[in-house]
Amino acid sequence: MPQFIKDGTVRLTSSVSALSYAAAVGKMEGDGPLGECFDYIAKGAELGEETWEKAESKFQQYAFDFALRKGNFLSDDIDFIFAGDLLNQCTGSTYGLRQYDLPFLGLYGACSTMAESLAVASLFADSGIGEYCAAITSSHFCSAERQFRFPINYGGVRTPTAQWTATASGCCIVGISDEPPFIKAVTIGKIVDMGEKDANNMGAAMAGAAYDSISRHLSNTGKRLSDYDAIFTGDLGQVGSDILCELFANQGTDISTVHKDCGLMLFDRKKQDVHAGGSGCGCSASVLCGYILPRVKSGELKNILFAATGALMSTTVSQQGESIPGISHVVEISHRK
Amino acid sequence: MPQFIKDGTVRLTSSVSALSYAAAVGKMEGDGPLGECFDYIAKGAELGEETWEKAESKFQQYAFDFALRKGNFLSDDIDFIFAGDLLNQCTGSTYGLRQYDLPFLGLYGACSTMAESLAVASLFADSGIGEYCAAITSSHFCSAERQFRFPINYGGVRTPTAQWTATASGCCIVGISDEPPFIKAVTIGKIVDMGEKDANNMGAAMAGAAYDSISRHLSNTGKRLSDYDAIFTGDLGQVGSDILCELFANQGTDISTVHKDCGLMLFDRKKQDVHAGGSGCGCSASVLCGYILPRVKSGELKNILFAATGALMSTTVSQQGESIPGISHVVEISHRK
Repeated sequence: MPQFIKDGTVRLTSSVSALSYAAAVGKMEGDGPLGECFDYIAKGAELGEETWEKAESKFQQYAFDFALRKGNFLSDDIDFIFAGDLLNQCTGSTYGLRQYDLPFLGLYGACSTMAESLAVASLFADSGIGEYCAAITSSHFCSAERQFRFPINYGGVRTPTAQWTATASGCCIVGISDEPPFIKAVTIGKIVDMGEKDANNMGAAMAGAAYDSISRHLSNTGKRLSDYDAIFTGDLGQVGSDILCELFANQGTDISTVHKDCGLMLFDRKKQDVHAGGSGCGCSASVLCGYILPRVKSGELKNILFAATGALMSTTVSQQGESIPGISHVVEISHRK
Repeated sequence: MPQFIKDGTVRLTSSVSALSYAAAVGKMEGDGPLGECFDYIAKGAELGEETWEKAESKFQQYAFDFALRKGNFLSDDIDFIFAGDLLNQCTGSTYGLRQYDLPFLGLYGACSTMAESLAVASLFADSGIGEYCAAITSSHFCSAERQFRFPINYGGVRTPTAQWTATASGCCIVGISDEPPFIKAVTIGKIVDMGEKDANNMGAAMAGAAYDSISRHLSNTGKRLSDYDAIFTGDLGQVGSDILCELFANQGTDISTVHKDCGLMLFDRKKQDVHAGGSGCGCSASVLCGYILPRVKSGELKNILFAATGALMSTTVSQQGESIPGISHVVEISHRK
């Protein structure tokens, strides 16, 4: 049964666990420092499909299929799917998961969607609303570039603050179990607007939301930074990570000792030309499912926060001069029950 | 505590009630047959804003503010907001609700989003995850036309099967109470693709999903059509409603005696040029919050199903030749505890 603490924070009490998880990624992500962590690495970005959008859907299907297989699940075992992505009308998810005859809840939290879907799926499992719930998200460099910036062929020059949308998908199936990793608590994000208007500087736009949610989680649960082996933000990149550390430093706290950012972990910025780091719904999803969860399971990581971050704008409202609000949802995951 | 029944259906057991609800609509919706039901009717489509998108966000803010005021809530009383809309990256919701410092869960189910958000909000309340949860959606004719079809000024001719996106928003706040209307059960939709490829015939694309979810709800809860005073679909319009009746007739069941469609209720098709009927996230949301819930509260309606319907495509995937999958989430609402 979930226990509401306050101000967006809920504690889970039924030993909800990440039962199975998988990540499917593109070639560049496979060539990065975490390449060995992933269940499937594509040879290219197309996966044999005619369009980038169809390829993104297929990445999502692969992540779900691998997670089912690794956990010895049949798709019919899953009671509810929670999924979302960056594409307009979330078609990466709806077309990717159309073939499964399963109750489907679409979510949108931009690049924070993996934390949102994992949080809600875990709350459903903790409440007994469903026995097995799957959280899935994806992103694709080429479909995102076309939609949010320029078609790939245009060859637009990227700013130093720009991030590289990961071609990747991650899926995590949760349910009650005695085996780690356990989902212990969640803090649902608030919309935080720092006034940033540069759509090529998402990290700066999202840092305030990460600061707000992580701070609230610590305060509402009575925890300190030192209680965690690591606090993983989703895709703040270098610019956003620096701002996050500064926001904590302004409060007299040094988060840099435990802070890691999935966007900085997925690629090697010295060798791979990703500017400020990786981003996209699939970035934090693939790092969570490929790198983080296996390490919490083994006990290499005892207690962590997964705080994926999203920028909630669209090209239309950006062109209308609006600033970019951010959001970050926090999921606390532990090796101990 | 929610009781999982099977195949997407969950029964609520803690007397979760719609505590307060409100609808804010545009001029044309106010001129329609349900005009007297709405809390706020705009003089135009702009609400004093420079862009249609900003106006849509304001409609959503108005619906939330009216629902708070009618229920004597302060915004701080709300534990979680569940919101979504049709705009790319759901900016109707994120910008409309940015000013409130509240835990925010973005959802995307196209025009089914009001049923999805009401279902998840009610499950959160039933589980004690939150005490008061708000479900909000919106749509705007002008922002939807520009995004999905043509800019208004282009004056594109509409097909007879086309529907008119409602300029409207609805908000419902749920929590545990002894007063009706009570949320009794929900059935989460599956993605159903009937192979329809005409983006001007959404009703046809969504009818199969409505049939699937309503049938599953009846079967999983052991109910019959005659147990309900009315079954409200979201925005099938005339074409989709005819198909839904045919799908039930093929199974030897006459749903026409209890079936109503929010898209056909919101406008007077003889006097208002809306072709096959109304549509949009705000259509079913405003009919639910303005017309249906007050009648279940008063007892004029004893037991109903609210089955909002959504078409899960984007213009990009439609242009790539994809068919349009539909989804429908069902919420059972009753005057009796």
